[in-house]
Amino acid sequence: MDNHVAPVPLEKAYRLINHGPTVLVSARHGGVDNVMAAAWACALDFDPPKLTVILDKQTLTRGLIERSGHFVIQVPTAAQLQLTYEVGNRSRANVPDKLERAGVQWFGVDGHDVPLVAGCSAWLACRLMPEPHMQDTYDLFVGEVVGAWADTRVFANGHWNYEHADPAWRSLHYIAGGQFYAIGASLKADPLK
Amino acid sequence: MDNHVAPVPLEKAYRLINHGPTVLVSARHGGVDNVMAAAWACALDFDPPKLTVILDKQTLTRGLIERSGHFVIQVPTAAQLQLTYEVGNRSRANVPDKLERAGVQWFGVDGHDVPLVAGCSAWLACRLMPEPHMQDTYDLFVGEVVGAWADTRVFANGHWNYEHADPAWRSLHYIAGGQFYAIGASLKADPLK
Repeated sequence: MDNHVAPVPLEKAYRLINHGPTVLVSARHGGVDNVMAAAWACALDFDPPKLTVILDKQTLTRGLIERSGHFVIQVPTAAQLQLTYEVGNRSRANVPDKLERAGVQWFGVDGHDVPLVAGCSAWLACRLMPEPHMQDTYDLFVGEVVGAWADTRVFANGHWNYEHADPAWRSLHYIAGGQFYAIGASLKADPLK
Repeated sequence: MDNHVAPVPLEKAYRLINHGPTVLVSARHGGVDNVMAAAWACALDFDPPKLTVILDKQTLTRGLIERSGHFVIQVPTAAQLQLTYEVGNRSRANVPDKLERAGVQWFGVDGHDVPLVAGCSAWLACRLMPEPHMQDTYDLFVGEVVGAWADTRVFANGHWNYEHADPAWRSLHYIAGGQFYAIGASLKADPLK
């Protein structure tokens, strides 16, 4: 594991996706590792942390998650703009070398049998909480976060440091047609009076 | 209705929240209008457009939605930073003049009996799709978007124009403790080869 990757306390894991970034969803089953992009992922609870993610029935990653019961939600960076777009718009079903073409590199974490994408800013290892009706009707999957890590160059002490890190670390927020926004300036509200 | 507020075609409504902004959730029932902030709202489907939002059992707005079956998801702006923080951190149950203190002003749209918060950048009028198990277990509510509008000064022709609009129009992305990020720079991926 990279020297800069550090565990995040589970009760603060929601902060890794609270700002609504587009994420990468990865999973492993039967000797196959895959990853896709998803703009529709969202925190669901604080402690224990949970999240939702929408996974189209046609994606190979969904099948890996249904069979293994585990997945990883990770936060890609502006430096991974092209990787994110490519893994979100090609399927291994049609493009067998999708991962190589996009430049995906994996790493692992002891105690978690899931593939993590190198170079991201944060990772949330999740256990699928089966909700068959929501999965079938809405493609909505619920995960309980069982492990969380972040790159200390952009997230430390429970806080993002986008404003002090290199802009290449900024999160990506997809709109449509290959167009994203990076996260921007920090704004602080006044305390309640 | 403000001159700058224009309808958004329903098949493009998902783009109004695809970048994961913190939203305001408003509803009306029995002569009461209320609004709260929610960081956990997410697109769920394209056409017909649907979305999810997490609503804590203690919020007054949740009760209005359960009773009326309708609500509005709207995208507040950087100019509404303090308003957003205040309506997310005070309840009318304890602070009866919460809306006046936060400076909330309403407007309406013909054909939709729901209150819209003036000054936002986009509004999605939703019909509650009852999912009792998800509501009870996870506080997760599903809405079908039945009307969508945006301020043409920042969203036009199906696209956000944050990069050309005044920074006061930028969306807010909440982290914790009163700290938000504004949306930032536009980034465009290369077409697939």
